[in-house]
Amino acid sequence: MTLIECVPNFSEGRRPDVVDAIIAAIAGVPGVSVLDRQSDGVHNRSVITFAGQDDAVAEGAFRGVEAAVRLIDLTQHEGAHPRMGAADVVPFVPLKGQDMPACVAVAHAVGARIARELGVPVYFYEEAARGEERRNLAAVREGQFEGLRAAIARDPDRAPDEGAPAVHPTAGATAVGARAPLIAYNIDLSSRDLGLAQDIARAIRERDGGLPKVKALGLALDDCVQVSINLTDYRVTSMQTAFEAVQVRALEAGVEIRGSEVVGLLPQDALVGLARVALLAHDFSAAQVLEARILDTLL
Amino acid sequence: MTLIECVPNFSEGRRPDVVDAIIAAIAGVPGVSVLDRQSDGVHNRSVITFAGQDDAVAEGAFRGVEAAVRLIDLTQHEGAHPRMGAADVVPFVPLKGQDMPACVAVAHAVGARIARELGVPVYFYEEAARGEERRNLAAVREGQFEGLRAAIARDPDRAPDEGAPAVHPTAGATAVGARAPLIAYNIDLSSRDLGLAQDIARAIRERDGGLPKVKALGLALDDCVQVSINLTDYRVTSMQTAFEAVQVRALEAGVEIRGSEVVGLLPQDALVGLARVALLAHDFSAAQVLEARILDTLL
Repeated sequence: MTLIECVPNFSEGRRPDVVDAIIAAIAGVPGVSVLDRQSDGVHNRSVITFAGQDDAVAEGAFRGVEAAVRLIDLTQHEGAHPRMGAADVVPFVPLKGQDMPACVAVAHAVGARIARELGVPVYFYEEAARGEERRNLAAVREGQFEGLRAAIARDPDRAPDEGAPAVHPTAGATAVGARAPLIAYNIDLSSRDLGLAQDIARAIRERDGGLPKVKALGLALDDCVQVSINLTDYRVTSMQTAFEAVQVRALEAGVEIRGSEVVGLLPQDALVGLARVALLAHDFSAAQVLEARILDTLL
Repeated sequence: MTLIECVPNFSEGRRPDVVDAIIAAIAGVPGVSVLDRQSDGVHNRSVITFAGQDDAVAEGAFRGVEAAVRLIDLTQHEGAHPRMGAADVVPFVPLKGQDMPACVAVAHAVGARIARELGVPVYFYEEAARGEERRNLAAVREGQFEGLRAAIARDPDRAPDEGAPAVHPTAGATAVGARAPLIAYNIDLSSRDLGLAQDIARAIRERDGGLPKVKALGLALDDCVQVSINLTDYRVTSMQTAFEAVQVRALEAGVEIRGSEVVGLLPQDALVGLARVALLAHDFSAAQVLEARILDTLL
């Protein structure tokens, strides 16, 4: 069983009926579980989260993109968030660390099918990128829907990975990728010293030479300060590692950790990893979790 | 959704076709996932593990008992393990800490149905017991199949909780209960000092005044010693607490923990609890685990 997740972003956040129709297309695939939907009117964009076996998720992703291409006209679209396609980004996410290659394979298959059957050119990004320069989504999307046509005409290096080197007239282009699940993880300090939270955030984040796959900011809350963290690959830097990195620096300043919180969802694999570290349970595996076994029998 | 588990023990461990038939009766209920089966020829006994929504599990348990009553004749049964019924014990187990009352309710309903429809008297034990003296399974089962008839005739206090005060001629009586999931958890010490492992086991186990809901033994393995633990209610004493209790005593003797292992399955809830403790993530909940959300949509 290869249980994966897909978190596509569609360029529609104001017309609920359009979002409903896209979700209905995805949810119509047997074995697909739609777990979450978020629409933002200012961004004019919606994020759908669904999961299931890899083949079901691949089919669901294709049908969602097909509905978006049919229902969204980017020539009429404006919003605060950068976008180049009606179905703007379609990342596939493994729920177990070892399943990234399966997600890359799904991304490539679904991307080829989108280009072939829908006439929408596709770029592969992050782990599904076919070259280093395509890993970064912002670079792929530069110029957005309005500028991409000219960029492709001007620069052969901007040609899509799949499909004709011409954007779809109303649906633009789609970025299809594979990435690790993002864990949004915040650590509160028993302090109101914003400078301390900012210093710790700087010390632990990758951008400033800290922990790999870690983004972090120092924030002031009502009654304490917080190191707000995105773990972009928990297999590389875990919650436990981030916690300890913050704790050691806070204690140096005489400050204790008040608590931490996971925002939104995380894969069970991250908890299994925590048990391995916290209990030195080196061989503990997700297959030993009862609910995972039940899920296995149902999928 | 109330996801629960049932771990019935049947008095047949030598005829695989009989065990197959009992499992088929259980697995025939939609929504039931059969997760494990273990048969022991010396004990002449089989343990089946299955799970699902509470109503499906209740139906599966009844059908399994019905098949056992039809297929097993205790007048012809001998084995090393004490038993009083064809379906000997039927414990219902919550997968989330807060669902124990639901398991008690299922135990009472299934027990009443077994007595009424199958003519097998039922005793409620552990959390489902209707009096303190019935909590302990060994006390309920004293005299076993062969002695129970006389014990009931002699002593009104031995009358069953449901059904006529007379054992079924071939199927005996059944103990139906509710209990927390048992976690089998072993901690290896970097030492070959069996006395140390035994001392630590004695210090941490409930029987000798240690941690509540903890059973423990010191064992010698090939290349180290082990504190072998049963956590009979992880909500009362968690893996983390047991680990720390062993670690502090080992370190006093200058010995480090080499590692730990979970034997068999544990509920995801135990991992969620671990995250709360290890990361001070006080509000973290099982509903934030992606696989739990998928399971919710499937059940």
